[in-house]
Amino acid sequence: MPFFKLIIAYDGTDYSGWQVQPNGITVQQRLEEAWQEVTGENARIIASGRTDAGVHAEGQVCSVESATQLDCVTLQRALNASCPDTISVLQVDWAPDGFHAIRDAVQKTYRYQIQFGHVRDPLQRQWRWFVPGLVDVEAVLQAARLLEGEHDFASFQAAGSDRKTTVRTVSRIDVRQRDHSVFSCLDIEVTADGFLYNMVRNIVGTLVRVGQGKRPPEWVQQVLDEKDRTAAGPTAPPHGLFLVHVEYDLPGSGGSGR
Amino acid sequence: MPFFKLIIAYDGTDYSGWQVQPNGITVQQRLEEAWQEVTGENARIIASGRTDAGVHAEGQVCSVESATQLDCVTLQRALNASCPDTISVLQVDWAPDGFHAIRDAVQKTYRYQIQFGHVRDPLQRQWRWFVPGLVDVEAVLQAARLLEGEHDFASFQAAGSDRKTTVRTVSRIDVRQRDHSVFSCLDIEVTADGFLYNMVRNIVGTLVRVGQGKRPPEWVQQVLDEKDRTAAGPTAPPHGLFLVHVEYDLPGSGGSGR
Repeated sequence: MPFFKLIIAYDGTDYSGWQVQPNGITVQQRLEEAWQEVTGENARIIASGRTDAGVHAEGQVCSVESATQLDCVTLQRALNASCPDTISVLQVDWAPDGFHAIRDAVQKTYRYQIQFGHVRDPLQRQWRWFVPGLVDVEAVLQAARLLEGEHDFASFQAAGSDRKTTVRTVSRIDVRQRDHSVFSCLDIEVTADGFLYNMVRNIVGTLVRVGQGKRPPEWVQQVLDEKDRTAAGPTAPPHGLFLVHVEYDLPGSGGSGR
Repeated sequence: MPFFKLIIAYDGTDYSGWQVQPNGITVQQRLEEAWQEVTGENARIIASGRTDAGVHAEGQVCSVESATQLDCVTLQRALNASCPDTISVLQVDWAPDGFHAIRDAVQKTYRYQIQFGHVRDPLQRQWRWFVPGLVDVEAVLQAARLLEGEHDFASFQAAGSDRKTTVRTVSRIDVRQRDHSVFSCLDIEVTADGFLYNMVRNIVGTLVRVGQGKRPPEWVQQVLDEKDRTAAGPTAPPHGLFLVHVEYDLPGSGGSGR
């Protein structure tokens, strides 16, 4: 059967994450229901990463094997008509035989959105972690530099996870200050070849500690060295996290373009 | 009693507009409840304009007369602690005697947010009117130019309104294309010395007609000339509308700064 590659966006606010589970509605469930409505097939749709409850996606990539005769444009339109307005299918493409959204992913980018200051922006409360007070952006930048490159990120992995290796290569951490109306905002974008469970949210919780002046930027090196979750800062809440982009090394494919 | 000037922001999604009314919760009601909780006073809080159900504010300005002994900073903190997280008090200042948020307003700016294209952005669906298909931004700009200046905006006033005069001066309409992720967005900002009921939403509905190529830019002149609501385009939905800024000509005051 042919393989398809879907690029999707979703508002994770009211979902119990990506993966189908007994309690709570998930994005995967809604998408698979739409697929069934459109193609008549009870297919399994695999995403590049299982975003947690409350986490959003701008460019999640999914793979699905299907015998549907529908062309990609028709599939996209029909899926969008069947999906709730919290999920959009941005693109549907044919994929090489055996395409697997997790296994074939080469790099992923997440963005974490923060708002700081004395007053919370009511219009961004669903998309940004509100950190009361000031944030020293220069210090956050300095600390972020220490995390770039190949490191053992064991300290940034959720307690209780057990991955074979906790070494990952972070190719880039981009820290950008943005102003919305009178509010001060910070976007932290992390690109890596792979992410441990809760890694971005733990990195952000740690960088915010530095930004608040509770720890110096060099502390991040110490956290890396300890290889122990309790050494790092708190886990940032899910609602500020967006899966932005997934890169694949497929013939004739450019990943989930932005 | 002394007068206060408040600058507030709110997410209008779940409110039945600004003004207290028998059915549905309003922003005014919530704010007056917070005021009572903080000061013990049953005060009337007046806003520069009564935003409709679903309309948002980044810089709404309110006036209130109060005998409270609390200073402005304490008032702001306490009000924010009492308000739901859909309303924030950005600033509290002393105002000149008799300050009245409606009567003393010199100019107001609204922004209307649109997303166009083939797929709706699930992450902006609450803040942008989704207009399927392409929009010719150049044509929108040309049409917008015709509305700048002093005109009789009778064609852009909600049917059934009766204001003494329907002449207003629009000092600026700013049309800006913005891209969020893969989505194409348009922000239309309108500044005027006063607005008729539904004026911005009717202007936007009309400009979008032009942007969609259903009418040429010159049509807007014809709409103005007819002085009849049925001549203009449809009313754009409320959820794309933001009250951004209100300007006052008060001694020592600079309006609701952005």
